[in-house]
Amino acid sequence: MGDKKYSVGVDYGTESGRAVLVDVSDGRVIASAVHLYANGVIDDVLPGTDIRLEPDWALQDPNDYTEVLKHTVPAVLQESGIDPEDVIGVGVDFTACTVVAAKADGTPLCFLPEWRDNPHAWVKLWKHHAAQPEANKLNQKAREMGQDWLDRYGGKISSEWFFPKVWQTLDEAPDVYAAADRFIEAADWIIWQLTGQETRNNCTAGYKAIWSKKDGFPTDRFLGALDPRLASVVDEKMSRDIQFLGDKAGAICRTAAEWTGLKVGTAVAVGNVDAHVSVPAATVTEPGRMVIIMGTSNCHMILSEEEHTVLGMCGYVADGIIPGYFGYEAGQSCVGDHFAWFVENCVPASYEREAAAQGVSIHELLEAKAAQQKPGEHGLVALDWWNGNRSVLVDVDLTGLLIGQTLATKPEDIYRALIEATAYGTRMIVETFTASGVAVDEIVATGGLPERNKLLMQIYADVTGREVKIAASKQTPALGSAMFGAVAAGKAVGGYDSIQEASAAMASLRDERFAPIPEHAAVYDKLYQEYVILHDTFGRGANDVMKRLKAIRAASLS
Amino acid sequence: MGDKKYSVGVDYGTESGRAVLVDVSDGRVIASAVHLYANGVIDDVLPGTDIRLEPDWALQDPNDYTEVLKHTVPAVLQESGIDPEDVIGVGVDFTACTVVAAKADGTPLCFLPEWRDNPHAWVKLWKHHAAQPEANKLNQKAREMGQDWLDRYGGKISSEWFFPKVWQTLDEAPDVYAAADRFIEAADWIIWQLTGQETRNNCTAGYKAIWSKKDGFPTDRFLGALDPRLASVVDEKMSRDIQFLGDKAGAICRTAAEWTGLKVGTAVAVGNVDAHVSVPAATVTEPGRMVIIMGTSNCHMILSEEEHTVLGMCGYVADGIIPGYFGYEAGQSCVGDHFAWFVENCVPASYEREAAAQGVSIHELLEAKAAQQKPGEHGLVALDWWNGNRSVLVDVDLTGLLIGQTLATKPEDIYRALIEATAYGTRMIVETFTASGVAVDEIVATGGLPERNKLLMQIYADVTGREVKIAASKQTPALGSAMFGAVAAGKAVGGYDSIQEASAAMASLRDERFAPIPEHAAVYDKLYQEYVILHDTFGRGANDVMKRLKAIRAASLS
Repeated sequence: MGDKKYSVGVDYGTESGRAVLVDVSDGRVIASAVHLYANGVIDDVLPGTDIRLEPDWALQDPNDYTEVLKHTVPAVLQESGIDPEDVIGVGVDFTACTVVAAKADGTPLCFLPEWRDNPHAWVKLWKHHAAQPEANKLNQKAREMGQDWLDRYGGKISSEWFFPKVWQTLDEAPDVYAAADRFIEAADWIIWQLTGQETRNNCTAGYKAIWSKKDGFPTDRFLGALDPRLASVVDEKMSRDIQFLGDKAGAICRTAAEWTGLKVGTAVAVGNVDAHVSVPAATVTEPGRMVIIMGTSNCHMILSEEEHTVLGMCGYVADGIIPGYFGYEAGQSCVGDHFAWFVENCVPASYEREAAAQGVSIHELLEAKAAQQKPGEHGLVALDWWNGNRSVLVDVDLTGLLIGQTLATKPEDIYRALIEATAYGTRMIVETFTASGVAVDEIVATGGLPERNKLLMQIYADVTGREVKIAASKQTPALGSAMFGAVAAGKAVGGYDSIQEASAAMASLRDERFAPIPEHAAVYDKLYQEYVILHDTFGRGANDVMKRLKAIRAASLS
Repeated sequence: MGDKKYSVGVDYGTESGRAVLVDVSDGRVIASAVHLYANGVIDDVLPGTDIRLEPDWALQDPNDYTEVLKHTVPAVLQESGIDPEDVIGVGVDFTACTVVAAKADGTPLCFLPEWRDNPHAWVKLWKHHAAQPEANKLNQKAREMGQDWLDRYGGKISSEWFFPKVWQTLDEAPDVYAAADRFIEAADWIIWQLTGQETRNNCTAGYKAIWSKKDGFPTDRFLGALDPRLASVVDEKMSRDIQFLGDKAGAICRTAAEWTGLKVGTAVAVGNVDAHVSVPAATVTEPGRMVIIMGTSNCHMILSEEEHTVLGMCGYVADGIIPGYFGYEAGQSCVGDHFAWFVENCVPASYEREAAAQGVSIHELLEAKAAQQKPGEHGLVALDWWNGNRSVLVDVDLTGLLIGQTLATKPEDIYRALIEATAYGTRMIVETFTASGVAVDEIVATGGLPERNKLLMQIYADVTGREVKIAASKQTPALGSAMFGAVAAGKAVGGYDSIQEASAAMASLRDERFAPIPEHAAVYDKLYQEYVILHDTFGRGANDVMKRLKAIRAASLS
């Protein structure tokens, strides 16, 4: 046992899980390991069967989650050569809302032969979208019954969230519903596997299961109005005992110690969500500094001391990100996906050859060409709705728009216009927050995109008029989980007593910052006004052409 | 000298001239020859100098026009082996408005050493766009002075037309203006070279020089209000003696006979315009049947017995296409150019490889993929304004719009949406005509596109609700010129007494026809309604974003 103490963070993504082992004193990553899920995203055929899934389904196999523990934690211990005695804590973050149906002992129903062929017995992954009918009915009933909590979620509960997913199981497979003793977030289920004890975290409860510290879950009366059999779902199959981020959920149990090589008794933090856990790992534990996790989509996280109703946000939860603050979340559903779509579908062969000749990727070539332009030079404006609008319109049926093309328009023009469109979408979110009383003074970017695309960062600074900084860690979720592991352990054993302390010691920013360039910002102010007009015309009902086109499309395919 | 009689048609395009020698009895092409202009489109440097042209300039060298006569007519005589005695007539069509500045004997100013270095001494080609300031001033003055003729041209005179081009010469090079004894359409200038006599045709006079049979040219008072030096331009440098399509302009002179190998005295038809001369060559000599010349752009030609003011058309001229009818013209400025832009800028390398593997062009691959779709399936609508809108909005500052994209949108979806957009633009023109009293019962397509793209033809039929037929000739302008040559010769020598007779004998349609498919037409009715809403929103002032983007672009580049 040495002087230096370490913490393990495990980050469960959509396709794989990653463990990092970090130095608690400074957050340095000593070792890292990734394990791909054998069954990945199950959206075609149920494993080992020829049972086909409907198009909107997305399931996972919880065995893949425990396999991540069995492979990655031993790997980081071995790679680092660290004595497990010196690992003082473990934290876990997960995609959400990802729901496991389990027996009372935590055994997932899909592990049981009698349920294995029923898709509802498997894990419903965050992007399982087949519960839209239930979400629609839930939202309608909530409005009818004047449920106050709707305001906390921008007026709409998503089909991705907890109750629509559980209700879909009840609707379509009442036998599975009846057989499930527990419905539980995967984040909490994996903590259960690590500690041997069932716990529930306030982050997923708050953002995904309509729970609040003040009011708890929706009333049994409301849930019973959805379906009488749902009236007692909270007490029967969930729990009202909610633990808070920063708390210790328990300690590594004997089984988990055998799987991981960690010592029995090592502190385990309360489960967390990948986006939310990234905030302190991006150095943010106070109001005013927005964290944007930029990957396939954008997730915007901001803290405030006050409770504000902000139109069209994804939700806010007291103590939902950092204890002591209201944590607000908003999102854009198409960012990296946007650029990937463009590169796959819209970039000519001549550019592929040019990129190959220069030895760069097509993204790099497009960025280099687009970076030579001045703002406004391409004459284009786009709406960033290729995958709907998550905030502030909360409307999955919106689609894309590009305006201003001429015969002289080049691929890099459109590429830059798409980058700008996502920046305008972020500015719309920033301005909606500030107008509602939630200040946004600077932006800290993290995720896969910021390190790869400087033009993107500069455009975000120029468009939002805020300085943009970048988190130093390339693995902020795993680092954040390790930080919460160190907090679960506590100062007495070499950890920290609060996530603020852990963040101050273990998180840092890159030296490179992107300040708004005044001449650029002036042009983007004008272009943003055009974006706003188009946003309101096509997003707020003046012209519902996007929805009518979807209806025509559906009719033509039927 | 044989029994069979022949006629020669010479078609002057933008990059080359073509001659055909056709059998007068049935229009069969016996021989064909093309000659590329040595100086092509002069838009960079004045030939033989290092004098640079401004961006909007487009000039030509009239020597290239006579070279076409010297190469192509002997070539078709030689290839066919026809005795020149059996060639009874010659017709010529030209791009318009293409203006030659000449001395009183027809010598172009640019042939004279003292003027050769002045760009204004060269031919201003139809697509010379540098006279926009003069066009703007002319339109404003015409409105101020309540000039009735504005109605004949959809309310606006184009910068491409005769008086703006001549006025630009006066504005920028008054010495060239003073030295020019004649300003004359290239169509008439080449007839002058063939016959030795200056004539002027009513087609270019009517469509391009604001002339009408009833009212003649704009008054000297109006022209003097533009610039006092222009007050007498018609009498000094033009002519009020206008000949009509179908008339004989004169006969082949000795010089032209030496150039061409044709006999002195062979009948020469009055000059014509490439688009207009195509109409009888596409079998149309009566009202109700719209000819669409589909190439880089669309040109719509329709006849009526009555005079109607139709909003936003390019113009109408009594006897301007076929004697006895008002000839109406409308246009779309971006059709083939649209698809070419898309293929050059927006089709990924994977499609290039797929096309190569199948041994087809990218256009063919995209057409094949797009043809598998049902109308409405792609969920997209576009506005066809990548190069502005010629009819019915008459606004060069409009730009493109594409709406409805998702992450599942494929290149063939956008390709099909662009085809449909041009069809919606044509329907807008068709409906504007019919609403104004000019009936459109069927469509005859000609030009480069129809034979190459069956999907395009079917979509035009489905969208417009009109049967679409295709002219049999692949060279309708040259054939049409040969027909007018046969009419200039007259029945007495084996030709025809009217273009109607010539068309009936010499023009034909392909067997293949495209009838509207009712289920498709029903879907397109819905999609067209969306097009109309977007058309009016962005084209009629409700949202002038396209113009503001152009202004922002101009400011960013200044």
